[in-house]
Amino acid sequence: MLDPDAARRITDAVDAAFDQQLEFTAELVRHPSLRSAEASAQNLMVAQFQQRGLSVDQWTLDGDSLSTHVGYGPTTVDFEDLTNVVGTYTAPEGQEEQGRSLILNGHVDVVPTGPEETWENHPWDPVVKNGWMHGRGVGDMKAGLAANLFAFDAVQAAGFSPNATIHFQSVVEEECTGNGSLAALQRGYTADAVVIPEPEENMLVRANVGVVWFRVRVSGKPTHVREMASGFNAIDAAYSVMGALRELESRWNAERANHRYFEDVDHPINFNIGMISGGDWPSSVPSWCEFDVRAALYPGIPAAEAWEEIQECVRTTEFGAAVSAERTGFFSEGYVLDEGSDAEATLEAAHQETFGSALESFTTPGYLDGRVFALYAGIPALVYGPVSEAIHGFDERVHLESVRRVTKTIALFIADWCGVTERSQ
Amino acid sequence: MLDPDAARRITDAVDAAFDQQLEFTAELVRHPSLRSAEASAQNLMVAQFQQRGLSVDQWTLDGDSLSTHVGYGPTTVDFEDLTNVVGTYTAPEGQEEQGRSLILNGHVDVVPTGPEETWENHPWDPVVKNGWMHGRGVGDMKAGLAANLFAFDAVQAAGFSPNATIHFQSVVEEECTGNGSLAALQRGYTADAVVIPEPEENMLVRANVGVVWFRVRVSGKPTHVREMASGFNAIDAAYSVMGALRELESRWNAERANHRYFEDVDHPINFNIGMISGGDWPSSVPSWCEFDVRAALYPGIPAAEAWEEIQECVRTTEFGAAVSAERTGFFSEGYVLDEGSDAEATLEAAHQETFGSALESFTTPGYLDGRVFALYAGIPALVYGPVSEAIHGFDERVHLESVRRVTKTIALFIADWCGVTERSQ
Repeated sequence: MLDPDAARRITDAVDAAFDQQLEFTAELVRHPSLRSAEASAQNLMVAQFQQRGLSVDQWTLDGDSLSTHVGYGPTTVDFEDLTNVVGTYTAPEGQEEQGRSLILNGHVDVVPTGPEETWENHPWDPVVKNGWMHGRGVGDMKAGLAANLFAFDAVQAAGFSPNATIHFQSVVEEECTGNGSLAALQRGYTADAVVIPEPEENMLVRANVGVVWFRVRVSGKPTHVREMASGFNAIDAAYSVMGALRELESRWNAERANHRYFEDVDHPINFNIGMISGGDWPSSVPSWCEFDVRAALYPGIPAAEAWEEIQECVRTTEFGAAVSAERTGFFSEGYVLDEGSDAEATLEAAHQETFGSALESFTTPGYLDGRVFALYAGIPALVYGPVSEAIHGFDERVHLESVRRVTKTIALFIADWCGVTERSQ
Repeated sequence: MLDPDAARRITDAVDAAFDQQLEFTAELVRHPSLRSAEASAQNLMVAQFQQRGLSVDQWTLDGDSLSTHVGYGPTTVDFEDLTNVVGTYTAPEGQEEQGRSLILNGHVDVVPTGPEETWENHPWDPVVKNGWMHGRGVGDMKAGLAANLFAFDAVQAAGFSPNATIHFQSVVEEECTGNGSLAALQRGYTADAVVIPEPEENMLVRANVGVVWFRVRVSGKPTHVREMASGFNAIDAAYSVMGALRELESRWNAERANHRYFEDVDHPINFNIGMISGGDWPSSVPSWCEFDVRAALYPGIPAAEAWEEIQECVRTTEFGAAVSAERTGFFSEGYVLDEGSDAEATLEAAHQETFGSALESFTTPGYLDGRVFALYAGIPALVYGPVSEAIHGFDERVHLESVRRVTKTIALFIADWCGVTERSQ
C-alpha cells in the first residue's frame, strides 16, 4: 500500500488538473465518434498520447485475423474505417521495471443520438449543468477514456513514475461487435490487470452477460390491399416472430437461479428489438420486414449454443418457412470476475481511500469488453466507473464529482498496482 | 345500337391489331413508371397520341390549385415531377359533333416491385407465358391504357369516325393520392361518361371504398438495453397502436350491413400497415417507430370524418401521448355508380356482344380514380377491365384473351356512345 502522504499528493494532483480533465472530456465529446467515424476522436487520443511521451501504435483492424477468433462479431461495416490506438508507457531509463503491468482500456465509439431535436442540449456540444456534463458518449465512455489519462498524469504530477508498463487503449467497436478490444488482444497486448472505466455507478462489475446481435428477415408474397386476406403481411408476421423471441427470453430469465451472480437480478436477459424496417408502399401488403435484435446470454453459455437456440426459436414459429436470421454483430460470451484477485483487492483499497466506503460489486445485464480480457487472456478485468444517466438515451450525462473520485481511484490503483518510484527533484 | 355488321368489322379490327397492341403494352411496361418517375412512359403516350393525330395537352400538376380541393391527397413528393397527358379527338371537319362525349382514362404510375429477385421474370422486362403477360403494372393498368388507344384505332380501322369528343387521359398519382385525375378535372376535362379499364375481372365496379393514407409516429425516451424496463420501446408501442387500429377496422367492418352494396362483401374495410421503420441501434431501446397505413371507408363517409375517428383511435391508446398521426396521401371518399344510367346500359350491350354473357357488377374494396369523376363532376364512371393476378405483388400478370375482349367492348362502347360516321372510301 501507498503511504498516506503519497496517496494525498496523488489525489491532490487529480483535483489540481480536474478542470483540464473536463475540458479534454468535452473536447472528446465534440468529436461525434459514431461507428466507422471514430477517426477524428482517435487522432485526438494520439495527440494526447504523444504529449505524454507514450509510444503510439495505431492500426487498422484486420478482418481476416479477427474472423478466426471465437469471440469475433460478424460485422456489417468496412474494416478500413476502423482504427485502434494504443499508447504505451514504460518505466524511464534507469528505473527497473518491477511492478505489475496494466492496461487502461476505453472505447471511443458512441451510439447514435436518435432525433437530435429531442435533446435538451445538442448531443455533440457538451454543457455542464448542476454537476453533470451532458452529451452523447460523455458517460459511455469518454469521461472514462479521459480519466485513464488524467489518473496517470496525477501520479506523475505528484512526483512519481510507475514501475511497470501501462498500455492506454482507445478502441473502436465496443458498441456493436467488441472487435476493437479483441484486435488489441490479437495484436499482443496483455498485462497483469485491466481497468475499464465504463459508467458503472462507482461500482465494480462482478459478472456480465454475453450478447448476440442478429437480424431477422421475414419475407413472403405481397398483394394488393384489396385482397389483403390472400397476402402474407410480413410486418404482422414479424411481430409474431418477436413474440416467439419474447417467450425464449422469458424462458432464459426463468433459469437465472441456476446462474451464479444472476440469481437476484430482476430481468438479466434482455432481448431488445432495436431497429425495424419493412414494406415499400402503404397500399401493398408488405412482402418483407427486417428487425434487429440484441439478445443476452449468461456467462458460461457459448454464444454458438445460444445462437442455435435462437435460430430454432424463429424457425419453429408459424411463419418459420418465411423467416431467416443472420448474425450482425456481437457474438460474445459473458464473464465473471473471479473473487479474491490481487487486482480486485488493490482496487478495493483505492476505492475505500477516495470514497471512504467499501467497494461494491454487482452484476450487469449489459455487454462489456471486459470479456475479451477475462475469457481469452485470463486477465483480471476491473470494469469500474462513474455515475451516469441516460446512456444510449437522450440527454446522456455523467456526474462530475463521481468522475473526480473515480479518477482518484484509478490514480491510486496505478501507483499501488504498478508500483512507483519517486523522482528526484 | 350498332348494326351487327359494323360491330363485327370493329371487333375484327381489334383482332387484326392485337399483336401490335400487346407490343405497345410491353413497351409501356419496360418504362418503370414508379411514382415521380413517370416521365418516360408519359412521353411514350404523347408519341402515341401524336401518331393518331390527337391534340396533346401535357402539364405539370399544380399543388396550390389541387390543395384547395376537398378530394386532394396531401403529397410527400415534388409536384414538378408529376405530369399528366391528355390526347383529345374531335370529329373531323365537316362531320357534325352530335354524340355523347367520352373520357378514356388510365393511370401510368405503378407501385414498387418489392425485392426484384423474388420475381420469376424481371418486373420491367415483360414476357408472355401461357396466355398471360407478366410485368409490374401490366395489369394495373398499362394493358388498360393500351386498350383505350387500340379500341379507338379499331373503330377507325373499321372505317368509322366517332361523332363526339374523346379525351384520352394518362394520369399520374393514382396509386397514392388520386391527384392526377383530380388535376385533369380541375383543368376542365369533363364528358358524358368515363371508362377506366382497371383490372376488374371483366366486371363493372358498382361501388368502391374511399381511402385515407396516414403515417403514425410513436416516439419516446430511449435508454441502454441494460435498463430496458425503464425505457419506452417505440417498436413495441407501435404494435400496440396497430392493435388499436385493427379494432377500429373490425368495428367499421361490422357496420357493413348499413352500407348499400357492401352488405355481402366479406371484409370490405382493410387497414393495411404497408411500411414500417424505427430505431437506430440494436442495443438501444428504440425511441421512435413510424408506420404507414392505408385505411378504407365506405361511400358516403367524408374522408374528414373517418380521419377524425382514426386520430381519436390512436390518441386514446395506452401510448397516446407519444403518438402522432399525419396524412400522407389519399384523402378520398368512396363512390357508388348509380344503377340505370345510359352509359351503363351501353357498356352492358357491348360486353354482351363481346363476351356473350351478361355484364356483372361488383363492389371492390380498393381505391379507384372513378370517384373523382363520380363525386366531383357527376360523370358516370365505368370502371371495367381485364382479368389480372398479383397486382401489387410479385409476378403481376394480365390475361391476354381478357384484354382482347375488353378492348373489343371498349371499341363497341366508343362507337355506340359517341356515335360514328362511316367514312367514304
